[in-house]
Amino acid sequence: MKYSTLFGKTTKEAPHDADSPNARLLTQAGYIHQLMAGAYTYLPLGLRTLKKIQQIVREEMDAIGGQEISVPMLTPKKVWEDTGRWGIDVLYRFEGAGGKEMALAATAEDMVTPLVKSFTSSYKDFPVLVYQMNDKFRNEPRAKSGLLRGREFNMKDLYSFHLTQEGFEEFYEKSKGAYLNVYQRCGLDAMVVKASGGDFTEKFSHEFQVKTEAGEDRVYVDKESGDALNREVVPEEDWENTDKYDIHKTIEVGNIFPLETRFSDAIKFTVQGADGSPQKVIMGSYGIGPSRVMGSIVEVHHDEKGIRWPKAVAPFHVYMASLSSKDEAVQARIDEVAAGLHDELEAAGVEVLWDERNTRPGSKFADADLIGLPLRLVVSEKTLAENAVEWKERHEDEARLVGIDDLVEQAKQWLAAPERLTSHE
Amino acid sequence: MKYSTLFGKTTKEAPHDADSPNARLLTQAGYIHQLMAGAYTYLPLGLRTLKKIQQIVREEMDAIGGQEISVPMLTPKKVWEDTGRWGIDVLYRFEGAGGKEMALAATAEDMVTPLVKSFTSSYKDFPVLVYQMNDKFRNEPRAKSGLLRGREFNMKDLYSFHLTQEGFEEFYEKSKGAYLNVYQRCGLDAMVVKASGGDFTEKFSHEFQVKTEAGEDRVYVDKESGDALNREVVPEEDWENTDKYDIHKTIEVGNIFPLETRFSDAIKFTVQGADGSPQKVIMGSYGIGPSRVMGSIVEVHHDEKGIRWPKAVAPFHVYMASLSSKDEAVQARIDEVAAGLHDELEAAGVEVLWDERNTRPGSKFADADLIGLPLRLVVSEKTLAENAVEWKERHEDEARLVGIDDLVEQAKQWLAAPERLTSHE
Repeated sequence: MKYSTLFGKTTKEAPHDADSPNARLLTQAGYIHQLMAGAYTYLPLGLRTLKKIQQIVREEMDAIGGQEISVPMLTPKKVWEDTGRWGIDVLYRFEGAGGKEMALAATAEDMVTPLVKSFTSSYKDFPVLVYQMNDKFRNEPRAKSGLLRGREFNMKDLYSFHLTQEGFEEFYEKSKGAYLNVYQRCGLDAMVVKASGGDFTEKFSHEFQVKTEAGEDRVYVDKESGDALNREVVPEEDWENTDKYDIHKTIEVGNIFPLETRFSDAIKFTVQGADGSPQKVIMGSYGIGPSRVMGSIVEVHHDEKGIRWPKAVAPFHVYMASLSSKDEAVQARIDEVAAGLHDELEAAGVEVLWDERNTRPGSKFADADLIGLPLRLVVSEKTLAENAVEWKERHEDEARLVGIDDLVEQAKQWLAAPERLTSHE
Repeated sequence: MKYSTLFGKTTKEAPHDADSPNARLLTQAGYIHQLMAGAYTYLPLGLRTLKKIQQIVREEMDAIGGQEISVPMLTPKKVWEDTGRWGIDVLYRFEGAGGKEMALAATAEDMVTPLVKSFTSSYKDFPVLVYQMNDKFRNEPRAKSGLLRGREFNMKDLYSFHLTQEGFEEFYEKSKGAYLNVYQRCGLDAMVVKASGGDFTEKFSHEFQVKTEAGEDRVYVDKESGDALNREVVPEEDWENTDKYDIHKTIEVGNIFPLETRFSDAIKFTVQGADGSPQKVIMGSYGIGPSRVMGSIVEVHHDEKGIRWPKAVAPFHVYMASLSSKDEAVQARIDEVAAGLHDELEAAGVEVLWDERNTRPGSKFADADLIGLPLRLVVSEKTLAENAVEWKERHEDEARLVGIDDLVEQAKQWLAAPERLTSHE
């Protein structure tokens, strides 16, 4: 795609509450634009990255047997009353025509539990593993930190339904692996952290946490056992105990909850077991916010010049800058080579954002660093004199020349190679 | 995919307000499930079809230069006040924390116009063609007709921004072609119909209408000129004039509007032209509801037994039923052949829903007709005796045998062949 025609260019502006690197960099690089506190428009670049993250999540959920559905975001009062949650703080509640009371979905146990009840009647129908990937809404008094804490945010929420505790536990453990795959594929090094089970269970729930200096959470890694714990489950007298714990600043990028029979009991959801007796339904919920993951990747992978996307989630793989020449014949040759490379790379599955604007090289290079695609190519009079293109990876300082004839093959190999990611904040 | 593990089976139940074939058939076949009047959950089958329609729309919008973005559905009062639409009936309005007034997006001119204003400064930035594909919300007093008139519904909305009337008109005409491509690919034969421009313009807007007996709209085709007109723009005295008009019952499946400068003027959006003087920004809006298209396809393509999906939007291409045998060796052979065909067909790009349940053939065939996949294959003791599989297309009455060795190749050819669609209501 040509950068000149892309909607949403880089900008010096940052949102009023650009209190975090992800808010500032994603805005300045033209990925997102704030509509109001806690609600961002995804511009074409940002939507491409969000969709890549969503697709990674989808593949990993499908791989553990999840089936994708889509539940309305506009929900009737009744489902929240049935589960006793109509009054919870985070719900946006309102009346529609005819005085009908409704709420926006902040989560979906309340809708999915009765849905699964209506499509199951015997033990043969279990387990059920359904997920969706749509926006959720939370009435946050203080939305902040860009994509990290929004009033509207994208969320994958999976719900599991089992008739035995063993079946549930087996799936719960499997889900941890799927979650770690998601983060690894997104270039995040996540820890599995024990947290309180909240209102639903005496057991632990689990969070996935990524280390970063800007993180608001704290993870306590027990020096002896290696267990990673959320602050909630560390005795208060140990909160500063660095003899016992390595304490890390982190961002939470997902969580999974044993729900036991909290929601199935609320709506009297039992099914007939193999022996004919009614069985309780054991549930779990499993959340990852693709928009929050996107913000977290930027928190972890950026430097003073801009974002440094991992290959798998970069909106394009390559930023190709063709530099201007005052010599018309040279300019024609630059344009011809760049256009040819653009088409050949795209045909080889290497996605190219081609900056063909007639602007200064310094301005192009600054935009390239800010936007943060993993590979920068430059086609100029100087490189063409060597029958080559300049090749510079975003995480390297040095550029080198690669022959034009060899470029597409090298780019394909580079794209297929495992990534060596280093966190630079 | 195995039917036994699919979430959301066929059911005899229909929603309380199953007032239309799409509501009844999509519910009974396990595509959608009503959460409340005007809001449906998409089950795995339904979500597959919805996504295929969305992808067709996306490809056609990209082909005319559209760039996909995603605007929040949760919107601040200010954008609606700025355009003078805070009070319109269809908005769900409410207060969040801190008394902040908000509305759910019913459409998005109010958010997209200031967005484009903030990313453009000169004539060089035009035209701008942006679209999104997310849910919209309308405070409908009487939601009805399944996916045809919802309170929450999926909508592709594109917005065009031009500095010249000629540029706008050229794009507006081009959009008609893209829309007609969408309908043709979805198996709908749509007419372009002149309608009133509404509040925004003295000019006509255009609707896309599909003939169907259950349609609530009326299209008047002028017998002399061939022009298709919405009832609004036909003189009232001619509403029953069948000498002058062929009058058709129809469903509206999309509309496009010249907005002139209605929204750009409201927010004082002008840009610097080539001569340095401020230029007005001429807008258009272009809507297709993928969920409404899905409902419309069912309205047009069904018979007394169930749905008849066109190949391009069927959730799977093939319904393969393996029938049960009491002979264990025969059963093993049936399972082996069916499993092999399933894998080979999937590898060839032919999507298979494999009904391997141990249920009566009659029940499987009834489900196959209800679900409405375009091709039904049957593997049974009888067909295996001929080293064959039974092949029956949904729109044909007769089945035939196809040799097992030849099946995958024939299925590939069938999938690639143009479709002959006939409307059966």
